[in-house]
Amino acid sequence: MQNNLPELAKLLRYYSLISTTEAGSGHPSSCLSAADLMAVLMFGTSRAESRGTSFKTDLGNHENPNNDRLIFSKGHAAPLFYALYAIATNRGSPSVAEGDPLYKRAMEPEEMLTLRKFGSRLEGHPTMEFPYTEVPTGSLGQGLSVGVGMALNAKLDKLDYLTFVLLGDSEMAEGSVWEAMAAASYYKLDNLVGIIDVNRLGQRGETMYGHHVEAYAKKCEAFGWESILVDGHNVNEIQAAFLKAGQTKDRPVMIIAKTFKGKGVSFMEDKDGWHGKPLSAEELGRALKELGDIDKSLVGEISIPEKSERQNVGMSETRQMKFTDYDLTKMVATRKAYGNALANLVEVNSDVIVLDAETSNSTYADAVKKNHPERFVECFIAEQNMVGMALGFSRRGKIPFVSTFAAFFSRAYDQIRMSALAQSNIKYIGSHAGVSIGEDGGSQMGLEEIAMFRALPETVVLYPSDAVSAEKLVFETAKHQGNVYIQTTRKEGAILYNQDEAFPIGGSKTLKSSENDVATVIGAGVTLHEALAAYEELKKEGINIRVIDLYSVKPPDLDALKKAALETKNIITVEDSHHEGGIYEAVAGALASVSSLSSYKVASLSVKKIPHSGKPEELLAFMGIDRTAIIKNVKEIINQ
Amino acid sequence: MQNNLPELAKLLRYYSLISTTEAGSGHPSSCLSAADLMAVLMFGTSRAESRGTSFKTDLGNHENPNNDRLIFSKGHAAPLFYALYAIATNRGSPSVAEGDPLYKRAMEPEEMLTLRKFGSRLEGHPTMEFPYTEVPTGSLGQGLSVGVGMALNAKLDKLDYLTFVLLGDSEMAEGSVWEAMAAASYYKLDNLVGIIDVNRLGQRGETMYGHHVEAYAKKCEAFGWESILVDGHNVNEIQAAFLKAGQTKDRPVMIIAKTFKGKGVSFMEDKDGWHGKPLSAEELGRALKELGDIDKSLVGEISIPEKSERQNVGMSETRQMKFTDYDLTKMVATRKAYGNALANLVEVNSDVIVLDAETSNSTYADAVKKNHPERFVECFIAEQNMVGMALGFSRRGKIPFVSTFAAFFSRAYDQIRMSALAQSNIKYIGSHAGVSIGEDGGSQMGLEEIAMFRALPETVVLYPSDAVSAEKLVFETAKHQGNVYIQTTRKEGAILYNQDEAFPIGGSKTLKSSENDVATVIGAGVTLHEALAAYEELKKEGINIRVIDLYSVKPPDLDALKKAALETKNIITVEDSHHEGGIYEAVAGALASVSSLSSYKVASLSVKKIPHSGKPEELLAFMGIDRTAIIKNVKEIINQ
Repeated sequence: MQNNLPELAKLLRYYSLISTTEAGSGHPSSCLSAADLMAVLMFGTSRAESRGTSFKTDLGNHENPNNDRLIFSKGHAAPLFYALYAIATNRGSPSVAEGDPLYKRAMEPEEMLTLRKFGSRLEGHPTMEFPYTEVPTGSLGQGLSVGVGMALNAKLDKLDYLTFVLLGDSEMAEGSVWEAMAAASYYKLDNLVGIIDVNRLGQRGETMYGHHVEAYAKKCEAFGWESILVDGHNVNEIQAAFLKAGQTKDRPVMIIAKTFKGKGVSFMEDKDGWHGKPLSAEELGRALKELGDIDKSLVGEISIPEKSERQNVGMSETRQMKFTDYDLTKMVATRKAYGNALANLVEVNSDVIVLDAETSNSTYADAVKKNHPERFVECFIAEQNMVGMALGFSRRGKIPFVSTFAAFFSRAYDQIRMSALAQSNIKYIGSHAGVSIGEDGGSQMGLEEIAMFRALPETVVLYPSDAVSAEKLVFETAKHQGNVYIQTTRKEGAILYNQDEAFPIGGSKTLKSSENDVATVIGAGVTLHEALAAYEELKKEGINIRVIDLYSVKPPDLDALKKAALETKNIITVEDSHHEGGIYEAVAGALASVSSLSSYKVASLSVKKIPHSGKPEELLAFMGIDRTAIIKNVKEIINQ
Repeated sequence: MQNNLPELAKLLRYYSLISTTEAGSGHPSSCLSAADLMAVLMFGTSRAESRGTSFKTDLGNHENPNNDRLIFSKGHAAPLFYALYAIATNRGSPSVAEGDPLYKRAMEPEEMLTLRKFGSRLEGHPTMEFPYTEVPTGSLGQGLSVGVGMALNAKLDKLDYLTFVLLGDSEMAEGSVWEAMAAASYYKLDNLVGIIDVNRLGQRGETMYGHHVEAYAKKCEAFGWESILVDGHNVNEIQAAFLKAGQTKDRPVMIIAKTFKGKGVSFMEDKDGWHGKPLSAEELGRALKELGDIDKSLVGEISIPEKSERQNVGMSETRQMKFTDYDLTKMVATRKAYGNALANLVEVNSDVIVLDAETSNSTYADAVKKNHPERFVECFIAEQNMVGMALGFSRRGKIPFVSTFAAFFSRAYDQIRMSALAQSNIKYIGSHAGVSIGEDGGSQMGLEEIAMFRALPETVVLYPSDAVSAEKLVFETAKHQGNVYIQTTRKEGAILYNQDEAFPIGGSKTLKSSENDVATVIGAGVTLHEALAAYEELKKEGINIRVIDLYSVKPPDLDALKKAALETKNIITVEDSHHEGGIYEAVAGALASVSSLSSYKVASLSVKKIPHSGKPEELLAFMGIDRTAIIKNVKEIINQ
């Protein structure tokens, strides 16, 4: 153990205080309670000592697959997180010559004064701008799930890095934390260490349990974790706790630390009213006097992990993926095609990992289990933790394919939102879209998910209508770097495309088209089949309509939409979902931005009523999104 | 205790089996495991017996405020839920003459055969169509939160009804359940009884803990509940458990029942592969043979609660609400105005109850605490449970005002979705909208919530831009029967309106208008102020623009939008959120449906990049949604 840990903790406090005062905002009191814990975690053991739980990382190469991982789930303690790297050094880093008197620093301490300023890497809560951030945090209760994903990734890849997660006591009220707790013990993650900074005070007063650390211990133990109670300001106790954590087998460890918010500054310590409040210049002066002499030349040493290669890197040749040879006369559900595609994909891409929340026999994610059970992670009915785990996998280089009923992704929208801020590489697959699922009723019908995913930055939304395009879109999705949502359908449908068709992201398919089209009908999923049926009926009466498969809902194919608006004037979108934020608004929104268009109209056939149980056909009719409704709408246009 | 409980349970099994076979879908095996538990709960004590936990309800008046409440959190056991009412009777119901030989039946048993059929009240999962449904369920893990709300409502209103929640073992993996567990013990809800039907099997195999009922008991106890283990098929044990539950003080009780999925049908019992699968006609024949003789004339007796009046009904005269008299020269944040309005509202409407998730000093929901601390429910950082509780309150006649940072409503989107299906009366208030919150960064910025709430059926979305309209919209929201989302802003802003202005839902305000307007700029929240600033700048150069305050985002004011499109041709929407599903698409979507419009264009100024930390002004500029961006856009239009 470095014998200057209290001095290092003091330095962390110093940077936490001066940076927030300089910024004029931030959460210094929440940093001060955890400063001793983090000083010991990162700098508490020298390189020579046995593994224990000493933190190891290559500061010059954050992507070294054997680096330990530290997630600040209490993201508002960001200044402390940055301060750790402001004083961290690697002795003997490969990028520093042997015998160099200067340590390799992660960053210059002066950068701390850019905290929260526009353009700085040091944002108000950790983001991907800062190179040592594992995932963006700040929406509380999400970090542990990410840690579970990273720790499980280490197990699967036989890597010996450890994952540490710093949690606030307030965020222990979030259910997502307990989903993660259950999953971590189920998967026996003895390479995962949580640290709860029990500083008693939340944003607006005392937490549910105040300083009753035993309440947390009881819960952690009931959820299958080893729990260790410590005085969070006693470096020896903390050190002992980390050493003990390193010796625990087959279960994760939670270090539950009794701390004081604002520790080290008498007028802030354990006092209410100091959440998210920086010190004034005058207060800072007083606080620094209390801290005493600061040695800014001090550095905290971190060792570099021995190994730096992933152990089981395999082939990742998505372009060689095979496609299922469908009998074009048979009906196939797109969810079934998803399962087929997934099974094909894992054969050629060893980075793909499949997660599902107790629905894999319905989403068909279970298709992967036949030949590659090791690539499947059962997440039970805990969608939030599933998405958090996926984010952890994604940040460690995996390509997670995450599935459940479309409707139940709404359960994890905050986690999905944070995965967008992480600019991760997660593929979300929601089955059972829309009222066409039938008898199970409204609670199971995915009607908001197109809107939900479209609203997220840099997120692609795909909605295949047949088995061939579903498989092709899984292929495109695997190749695409970024978050993608694919919506699949419960109901079986006819196959529309030949195997040699390409389905690029951002494209569309114009399935029916003539020079006499009186309207363009745009659909995706089950409604495209209704549009094609309407086409056949109308054709018998000598009426031509254009039919477009808008399989890429975001980004949409603006050229095809413009052409349709110009040539047919009337557009009808038909969707088995609410139209707000859905296909209608995607189309109307895309067209409204085009100045060269003269008068056109878009009509919305969509789910505008509270849904019910019934046969799929009855429900499509009830909502006015079936072939009959399309035909009626087209005829109204003609008779105007 | 009725001595025919096993016979009644058999009848429940009978109806569960025949109804699902007739429907051709459904979850009979999940009904059979809980049949004995539910038979004892509802019919296990006679009217003469002491309170215990015997179920009391007035079948003729489900809104009787003293009726006990039963929530099927495992909503897929809906046939069992309906079957309870198919055999339930009230002896001595007020609507049945004394001495009438016929019991008052809740429904005719024959109706069971309409299960899952289009138009039937008996949907695949319980919905509000069935009069005895407390809340729609089917998205697992939500029922207990609703129960917590209902039980806390009883405490606050000094009513002595009990709340029972039937949970599946699979759904215990949902974090929301543990949020509810913590809240129930924090609020010492000894009028709440949970029953976990531990039937070991989930949808695709064994649950996390299988039949290890002790694992559940340990967790429940760690969360502050009394736990009682029972054999879920032994009516005497179950009866004893309910009696014990009735005697527990100051803490909620969880009855943890070891059961067998498919109990009573040998070829289904405890067997995998029977989830969500009805029996074929042949299988049904065999199953009914195993059940043995069925006496369809049997009825289950339920007593009627003694009292039928709410104890503390007060005035609910929203129309007499007073409004704050603002100094029109001062800057006020709309979140502050929300607090003021709330304080005014609770003075005149005793049904209003205020919930907040540890952010009340930021959302200003804490304004209500000054004069009415009893109307404020602290929910800690557990947004899912907060919304579930609000749904419970709403169903018991309260008007919950629920607040947190806008971004964190994404955490509870599934619960909010279910509240829409419940057609409840909840008012959601999200503060800290958009990048204009500044330094805290992306994780705290509400950018998706307009899209999220707009996508829900029958939900109103309001976005006030100044303190006066914010207060007026709180007033409109209280008067409106239904779910409403109000978005408020962190930043202070000028007051735009006089006290005598009205702000009806569906309206808008055209703040600037002339015959020479070259474009219409539509904003709400912080962007409206930018639009007004742009107006002043442009006016100096002799350029006129129209400025519309679209405070009612859903429904929008189509007349004002049409007029603007007709008269100015160019529309620019400016919003501090992503445009997908936001104000841009609300406007473009509304206009695209109008056939009489000739060529017009809508431009979107919105958040199109990953957000960062910085000063509000810097971020508005970075995203291109400030006055400068508006001016640039208008000039481009002129120079086209």
